[in-house]
Amino acid sequence: MKVRNAAGREIETEIAGRTLKPFLGAKKHTYHSKITNLSNALKKCGIKDGDTLSFHHQLRNGDFVVNITLAAVRDLGIKNIRMAQTAIFNVHEPVIDFIKEGVVNRIEGSINGIVGDFISKNPLSYPVVLRSHGGRWAAVKTGELHPNIAIIAASTSDECGNCTGVLGDSAFGPISYSQVDALYADHVIVVTDNIVGYPCKFQEIQERNVDCVAQVDHIGDPKNIMSGTTKITEDPMKLQIARDCVDLMDAAGLIKDGMVFQSGAGGISLAAMKFLGERLEEKDVVASTATGGLTRLIVDIYKAGRVKNIYYSQVFDDYSVKFIQEDIGLPADIGHYADPTSKGRTIDGLDTVVLGATEVDINFNVNVNTHSDGRMLHGIGGHQDTAAGSSLCIVTCPVFRKTNPIVKEKVTTISTPGDVVDAIVTDKGTAINPKRKDLIEKVKGRIKIVPIEDLKQLAYDATGGPQELHFTDEIVGMTKWFDGTVLDNIWKVKE
Amino acid sequence: MKVRNAAGREIETEIAGRTLKPFLGAKKHTYHSKITNLSNALKKCGIKDGDTLSFHHQLRNGDFVVNITLAAVRDLGIKNIRMAQTAIFNVHEPVIDFIKEGVVNRIEGSINGIVGDFISKNPLSYPVVLRSHGGRWAAVKTGELHPNIAIIAASTSDECGNCTGVLGDSAFGPISYSQVDALYADHVIVVTDNIVGYPCKFQEIQERNVDCVAQVDHIGDPKNIMSGTTKITEDPMKLQIARDCVDLMDAAGLIKDGMVFQSGAGGISLAAMKFLGERLEEKDVVASTATGGLTRLIVDIYKAGRVKNIYYSQVFDDYSVKFIQEDIGLPADIGHYADPTSKGRTIDGLDTVVLGATEVDINFNVNVNTHSDGRMLHGIGGHQDTAAGSSLCIVTCPVFRKTNPIVKEKVTTISTPGDVVDAIVTDKGTAINPKRKDLIEKVKGRIKIVPIEDLKQLAYDATGGPQELHFTDEIVGMTKWFDGTVLDNIWKVKE
Repeated sequence: MKVRNAAGREIETEIAGRTLKPFLGAKKHTYHSKITNLSNALKKCGIKDGDTLSFHHQLRNGDFVVNITLAAVRDLGIKNIRMAQTAIFNVHEPVIDFIKEGVVNRIEGSINGIVGDFISKNPLSYPVVLRSHGGRWAAVKTGELHPNIAIIAASTSDECGNCTGVLGDSAFGPISYSQVDALYADHVIVVTDNIVGYPCKFQEIQERNVDCVAQVDHIGDPKNIMSGTTKITEDPMKLQIARDCVDLMDAAGLIKDGMVFQSGAGGISLAAMKFLGERLEEKDVVASTATGGLTRLIVDIYKAGRVKNIYYSQVFDDYSVKFIQEDIGLPADIGHYADPTSKGRTIDGLDTVVLGATEVDINFNVNVNTHSDGRMLHGIGGHQDTAAGSSLCIVTCPVFRKTNPIVKEKVTTISTPGDVVDAIVTDKGTAINPKRKDLIEKVKGRIKIVPIEDLKQLAYDATGGPQELHFTDEIVGMTKWFDGTVLDNIWKVKE
Repeated sequence: MKVRNAAGREIETEIAGRTLKPFLGAKKHTYHSKITNLSNALKKCGIKDGDTLSFHHQLRNGDFVVNITLAAVRDLGIKNIRMAQTAIFNVHEPVIDFIKEGVVNRIEGSINGIVGDFISKNPLSYPVVLRSHGGRWAAVKTGELHPNIAIIAASTSDECGNCTGVLGDSAFGPISYSQVDALYADHVIVVTDNIVGYPCKFQEIQERNVDCVAQVDHIGDPKNIMSGTTKITEDPMKLQIARDCVDLMDAAGLIKDGMVFQSGAGGISLAAMKFLGERLEEKDVVASTATGGLTRLIVDIYKAGRVKNIYYSQVFDDYSVKFIQEDIGLPADIGHYADPTSKGRTIDGLDTVVLGATEVDINFNVNVNTHSDGRMLHGIGGHQDTAAGSSLCIVTCPVFRKTNPIVKEKVTTISTPGDVVDAIVTDKGTAINPKRKDLIEKVKGRIKIVPIEDLKQLAYDATGGPQELHFTDEIVGMTKWFDGTVLDNIWKVKE
């Protein structure tokens, strides 16, 4: 059918079965500042009871954004919010009050510390869902976890919502968790304490996805944004474990030109990176790429020419933030790093990673989420992702801590299944997953291999075995494998 | 219901009405090179009769990728392909043969030159759909134009598909048209002639979206990839029009600190940029941002400190490519630049743009697609997008060319509707859209304003008026407004 459109032209409204809409008129697209306050931003985004609000955790224990957002939500009289944060920390203790007041009634995201302790004893109306970094990205992408409003903390933004975590007083490194939220949430609010002239540099999040820019006094406390985990442990036991990790990598033939390794922050992993850097130097080897978290240690290895590329998803210290302000290099958002639904991820090429554990068991299952007393105190982070992505996944732990065996018959909670854990390096020797016959063949005679059952027995002998836990039938949380399936339930412990 | 999952844990499969899938087992994610040849890549991506293949045009008239891909398609015996390129040029003359052979039977994308001439006389089985840059992006995003396979030419890639147009012998600037194809196509093939070690720098397209990397000898001819449009016209008439554009901007009060202007390549627009640069200097003004295409002219204005940011979506000359290799600055992909379905675009803040025309009419409608003889010879490019995004959209043209009036009663085809065109600057004076009373008020007395009807009369007097066209009832193409509605049909001319 021919119709006259708003431009005065006769056009066909159907051609070969395809329907065509006639032009209705054109108008100028104008530009408005998106700056407002948090409360107005929430209202503009149509916040309502039962909504899901997402947050990233890159301000770590220095974050103010979760607390001030939930306070604004409460002040609007909104109830039953589902939090979909990437992680919360002790600074988020006020979340307990928001739960008590009915502002928050569900949480899907990593929980570290105080809030986890509270929920372990006071289950929410739906269990806490714990996912890995990659698993969370995929859940948002597939719609399993749909945020109504994404709250994105940025240390610098322009009035249109182009924003970054690289610049400003509260700089924390490139925003790397929120891209998927920005794409899939119904509405997006950038929360910042530093507005700059258009266009903002770096722009990990762009105006195209942003509804509002909420200006606040401070998004966080800079001295707690930086984790301070760049200090190498001085515990001789931990240092020995770290050295043994590097010996294992070396015995496995991985310390060679072009190697790709994951760098983390904290404890033994960091020490292992230090020793790996030294080993690269000794062997005159140049690694291809360090993925994961950026610390001064890695920057120094890079500056020394011992690794060609740093493909980082988080930045852990001031030194590294200053470094990337000068040379942004190759930041990898979490989707690039670890999205299991993608066609290729940076971690799929990982030669090796060194990971921690609160418990391990004789099937090489790893627990990073609960303590031996059953309390849910930590998130999964990139544990599952890097374990599955690496050729040699090394988990480190002491055989026991105080009166608790760490190597056990069965972990309290499975965070990462033994199928993808290749070795457990302890203070009493290294156990290799018996499924990795190829690895055992390579390293035997070069490092001391101990059967995992022996390590367990050592732990049980020294401690008298694990405390017996009695669970109620209330589920406080669950761990998911990054494909969305349920790995384990976390049950409330009988008090 | 409780079930035992593959990790040996009893988990609940339903909680509060939500179904939960039990863990089925974990395996290592390994990494494989994606490098293959074009034919295998097409087969791996399951190419079949009737598929839609998308391409970008950033190799311009030096592009080999469209032709070699269609040759590979033909050799596989595949028919009835719909091309969804961003543009094709005279180098793509072989497309005519692919049409004749039945390999290609539909085209949705800009067509420049020879192929357009052919199709104007030999309609395809569905009219050619012409969209603006932003309109095409939106069409792919909304599913109106769904590519089965996106073919993405890259001047450098790693074996995983992280790739760029910034590096390599065939460098053409950041890939900026294909992100939406990479996201929404069923399959993605990167075509490159330069494989580098993992990870490739810059990475406008990332491995997460790439199925295959097709290695070819040459993706294009470097001397034709660069458009060479950076030479300023020497035609005194055109230079005068360009000067009048800058006088109009100045009279409108736009040449002030913080101004945002669109820079293009070619003809009068480029000359206008040159004079604008001089005017910035004379008035000691510092512009905020230049958007659009990058040329030496703009880089030099930037280096002279007369514009703070270059927010570029294309790069037109070697000088500019070398410049961004050193300092990538702020590339804006087409979605950021012009996606009308987004929440904010770089062009929404445009103060002014200078655009060309093959014809204009007394309603300020602009034709850039067809010639006065009715042949479809050009694409829309960013014409609509920047017209609607800018406060002052200036269209330039001579009043007549040879025996053809350019200012007409009615343009042959509406590419950009008069609603968003503010001024037409010609060799016989400047017409202001009567709807822009504010603008007329501002500039009157400062520049010579001529009613558009007078310019038309001048053209008709000098040429004897436009040649009368007789159309058949066959539709060879259509122009769409960037919201997906039909602006105009292009009818086959009776020969």
